[in-house]
Amino acid sequence: MPKLYIGNKNYSSWSMRPWVLLKQAGIPFEEVRVRFDSFEADSEFKRVIGPVSPTGKVPVLVDGDLVVWDTLAIAEYVAETWADKQLWPQDAKARARARSVCAEMHSGFTALRSNCPMNIEADLADTGALIWRDKPGVRADVQRLVDMWSALLQEHGGPLLFGQFSVADAYFAPVCMRLHTYALPVPAHITAYVNRVRALPGVQDWIAEALGEKDFLAFEEPYRLRHTED
Amino acid sequence: MPKLYIGNKNYSSWSMRPWVLLKQAGIPFEEVRVRFDSFEADSEFKRVIGPVSPTGKVPVLVDGDLVVWDTLAIAEYVAETWADKQLWPQDAKARARARSVCAEMHSGFTALRSNCPMNIEADLADTGALIWRDKPGVRADVQRLVDMWSALLQEHGGPLLFGQFSVADAYFAPVCMRLHTYALPVPAHITAYVNRVRALPGVQDWIAEALGEKDFLAFEEPYRLRHTED
Ligand SMILES: N[C@@H](CCC(=O)N[C@@H](CS)C(=O)NCC(=O)O)C(=O)O
Ligand SMILES: N[C@@H](CCC(=O)N[C@@H](CS)C(=O)NCC(=O)O)C(=O)O
Repeated sequence: MPKLYIGNKNYSSWSMRPWVLLKQAGIPFEEVRVRFDSFEADSEFKRVIGPVSPTGKVPVLVDGDLVVWDTLAIAEYVAETWADKQLWPQDAKARARARSVCAEMHSGFTALRSNCPMNIEADLADTGALIWRDKPGVRADVQRLVDMWSALLQEHGGPLLFGQFSVADAYFAPVCMRLHTYALPVPAHITAYVNRVRALPGVQDWIAEALGEKDFLAFEEPYRLRHTED
Repeated sequence: MPKLYIGNKNYSSWSMRPWVLLKQAGIPFEEVRVRFDSFEADSEFKRVIGPVSPTGKVPVLVDGDLVVWDTLAIAEYVAETWADKQLWPQDAKARARARSVCAEMHSGFTALRSNCPMNIEADLADTGALIWRDKPGVRADVQRLVDMWSALLQEHGGPLLFGQFSVADAYFAPVCMRLHTYALPVPAHITAYVNRVRALPGVQDWIAEALGEKDFLAFEEPYRLRHTED
């Protein structure tokens, strides 16, 4: 059974992608949670992950003696190894587009990622309104998402980006979390897609476990001084 | 015949990857060069690439009515479509590792990429020595490359990262250019790998055409006021 090393579920957007992919596909795996105490060289996190991953980051998938790191490589490995799950679209052209949007996500959307870090348990609607007002880069990133998702939902007829669940939906799941947490303004059909992603059983499981953590990490919290319930 | 849209050969590190991949694999393609006049919304570059690519960036591969953007998606499409060229390693484990290092490159090495932009025709050895002295992030990125390449060259026995030419070598070709241009200090066996990449016919062709451009773009030149020969 493969082992997936992940970080805190409330904060680790990269970890969420392969976890949701495996879960939603019904592939059994062992989860190894490595808490984010800090990312300093002498942190407990680095002490644990250092010997496992050559990059010192999560997620990492360990399958027997094989170590696969970086979310996109993990997604390709999972899709190839469990080919019967059809995690990429079966049509070659749709597959090429699915890979294009995932690769674009993998290296892009930097304004959205840096200004709106994932924080599932938080309600940051007011912060989101300020960000929306003041950060043109965030508005541009969201506009690109709206254009991309609108075209794909129309072309493939929904309910998900390429019809049925695919790597692309797992890849954008953390973005759906951010749009929700920061209440960024998007058209109704985009909110409906966000809500469909949030309702996927694999995403529901992740959210429930994120809410259960109650592990407030100041270095992941540019906008809050304390946990909501404190 | 697929069309590959690329930027200036002297500067466009992202364009270089799929171009070298196609060339080195002997896959016929039509090159469409879109000059980098600027990246402003009203530039000639955006006017040409806007209608072709949803991201407004190069590279983009157009194959019939299919548009594939982002280098990693282009690499996957090429490897899948011309499967006989064996552009990913044939062994499943080696393939997973090759995808890991490419995905790591796709979103990482930001210190090296931002401090040492590709500039094939320039000799920036002195600039490189200052960067090396003052930028710990660059030293860390280069150390990671040295560790990664050393392990792969040893494991697969060379001459390239996974034995014969693969997507991984195309993916790191622009990095080889940077190590050379900025004369960053690396062990001899790493310099030998860099030189083997530089000697690949597909890379030689790219370098020759980059040298032939003589198109000095100030916004791509943080370290020079003019073209070397001026
Ligand atoms: N490109 C990597 C990014 C992984 C990443 O940045 N993970 C974060 C947690 S979400 C991490 O482990 N950071 C530790 C560090 O930066 O030292 C991937 O796709 O897996
Ligand atoms: N992640 C993209 C990056 C492409 C990219 O940044 N290309 C640059 C040229 S090397 C570009 O077109 N820049 C135009 C812009 O930023 O507006 C890829 O892998 O293709």
